[in-house]
Amino acid sequence: MNTECPLPVFTDETVRVGHGSGGELSQRLISELIRPHFDNPWLRQAHDSATLCPGSERIVFTTDSFVVSPLFFPGGDIGELAVYGTVNDLAMSGAVPRFLSCSLILEEGLPMQTLDRALASMGRAARDTGVQLVTGDTKVVERGKGDGLYINTAGIGVLEHSEVIAPERIAPGDLILLSGDIGRHGMAVMATREGLEFESPLRSDCAPLAEPVLALLNAGITVHCLRDLTRGGLATALVELAESAGRELVVEEAAIPVSEPVQGACELLGLDPLYVANEGRFIAFVPADRAVEALAILQGTAVAADSRVIGSASTGHRPRVIMRNTIGSERLLDRLPGEQLPRIC
Amino acid sequence: MNTECPLPVFTDETVRVGHGSGGELSQRLISELIRPHFDNPWLRQAHDSATLCPGSERIVFTTDSFVVSPLFFPGGDIGELAVYGTVNDLAMSGAVPRFLSCSLILEEGLPMQTLDRALASMGRAARDTGVQLVTGDTKVVERGKGDGLYINTAGIGVLEHSEVIAPERIAPGDLILLSGDIGRHGMAVMATREGLEFESPLRSDCAPLAEPVLALLNAGITVHCLRDLTRGGLATALVELAESAGRELVVEEAAIPVSEPVQGACELLGLDPLYVANEGRFIAFVPADRAVEALAILQGTAVAADSRVIGSASTGHRPRVIMRNTIGSERLLDRLPGEQLPRIC
Repeated sequence: MNTECPLPVFTDETVRVGHGSGGELSQRLISELIRPHFDNPWLRQAHDSATLCPGSERIVFTTDSFVVSPLFFPGGDIGELAVYGTVNDLAMSGAVPRFLSCSLILEEGLPMQTLDRALASMGRAARDTGVQLVTGDTKVVERGKGDGLYINTAGIGVLEHSEVIAPERIAPGDLILLSGDIGRHGMAVMATREGLEFESPLRSDCAPLAEPVLALLNAGITVHCLRDLTRGGLATALVELAESAGRELVVEEAAIPVSEPVQGACELLGLDPLYVANEGRFIAFVPADRAVEALAILQGTAVAADSRVIGSASTGHRPRVIMRNTIGSERLLDRLPGEQLPRIC
Repeated sequence: MNTECPLPVFTDETVRVGHGSGGELSQRLISELIRPHFDNPWLRQAHDSATLCPGSERIVFTTDSFVVSPLFFPGGDIGELAVYGTVNDLAMSGAVPRFLSCSLILEEGLPMQTLDRALASMGRAARDTGVQLVTGDTKVVERGKGDGLYINTAGIGVLEHSEVIAPERIAPGDLILLSGDIGRHGMAVMATREGLEFESPLRSDCAPLAEPVLALLNAGITVHCLRDLTRGGLATALVELAESAGRELVVEEAAIPVSEPVQGACELLGLDPLYVANEGRFIAFVPADRAVEALAILQGTAVAADSRVIGSASTGHRPRVIMRNTIGSERLLDRLPGEQLPRIC
């Protein structure tokens, strides 16, 4: 993990790759340069999505651009990512994903077959998750002004429950459930990009997460907060939530599953799986008295079959994340400080 | 206007700049390669936006990515375009624009001051049009994989009336109202890009169009169809509507205003202003018996002060656009066939 100096004055600087990492630099870019131009109550929530009431219903609105390189990787591709990424952001509010937009930025020279393959994948992913792609846009940029294909999706979901699922609801004693092993997506993309071969194949965990979330809600489980673990990985998600909630979170290192191929690849490349991107994993904060039931529900779904408890929210008010290892020693987790894996989603 | 051979088999080809022109090539790319992967009733409407009913209200959803080059031009910039472009697509359904998402694709090396300036412009444009920017995303791509800044916005508007404003409502006898002179945006961007200097300055018409549209609707005017004139210009918009509506449209060439600087620049560059992009102009189809009233309402708004009648829908069922000149001779208009002005919005 490289440590970079904080930027004293943003306007003296240029954009660096690390500003897209999802970590500390991204956070500062958003909070210091971007958000001030658009200040409003929705942005102050600092969620991955906004809950709106244009009429009598509550809808959830979110967007993501996908610039992953390469476009196709073991376990997924940009088309699936563009659907699942946005569906997952909606699901993390407890919304039923309903509608997507799709905007393409094509680079001159992109083979039509490559585009066709990515769109076919998007179509399948949309059907699999029950969302309709209802509106779109296509732009073309000259050779050398893009990288084949960038896809933006925005999504609308409907809240069919009255729960508020948000960082401020995290309460002391809440247990933290993690839906499966971490680091697959980042390492699968990284290995493909670098042409690395491992004995056991590395496959992305890229998957839609609405099913396990809605299973919890439909069973009447109180869910205080949800977060999918994308850029910046599990560690960054935990730190962001601790700060948004103003809570201390305590996590057991040994409880966090990392597959052998991911562990091996991380060691080889000097990366910490806690900071590696996922595209089909999330954490849920639930009251301790419903945790066993919640865990059983999650484990009953294919995508979250390997769910487990990894920690809890303490009574502490210092917004921080304490990681405890097997011999009981503790360390504080930081956000991903700079750049780890650019163009991961 | 160059005429290109139609593509016989898309999958043998690569993306060309003309596929982003908004004309014939864009249309074929969308209808033959993109839309088949996502077929559903909303996409079959082939509008710039989709009308959805997630609950009891009708909302309108749309998206656009903005890749304009240069980022700043006389009369506007990418930030204004990104707000007004999406606001205008919502307005063309008669919706009140309410919420925007904003997704940035930044190229490594982009000066933070440039980003700040574009975002400040977005913020002002959002406040001016009464929309809230509620959710966003930021990605960074390496040097040479972008062009400074691309912005995607998606927008949600609310339909507060029960009118259906759509091509299929165009009826014989409807008059076609044009909100002002054409070609300013395309020529302003082109002139800046090419470093051309003219005696009279060329300024983009980039502007929000919700005010004149809502003025019509609030006055109880029946509006059959609306379309903003972006890529492909007035001619392409008319041809698309004739085809979607299955109607013959007849337009008087002399009624279409083109400013002297735009006319001069078009002649110099060998372009036809009918095909040049606009970002603050639209056409409205209204029944003849309300046209005078509608015209007065439009002329009462700053952005559409120069509105006029340019033609009508005939009783003919052949979906085509007839352009009549001052001596009474007629020609058929085509869509923009290939590429005219890439990266115009």
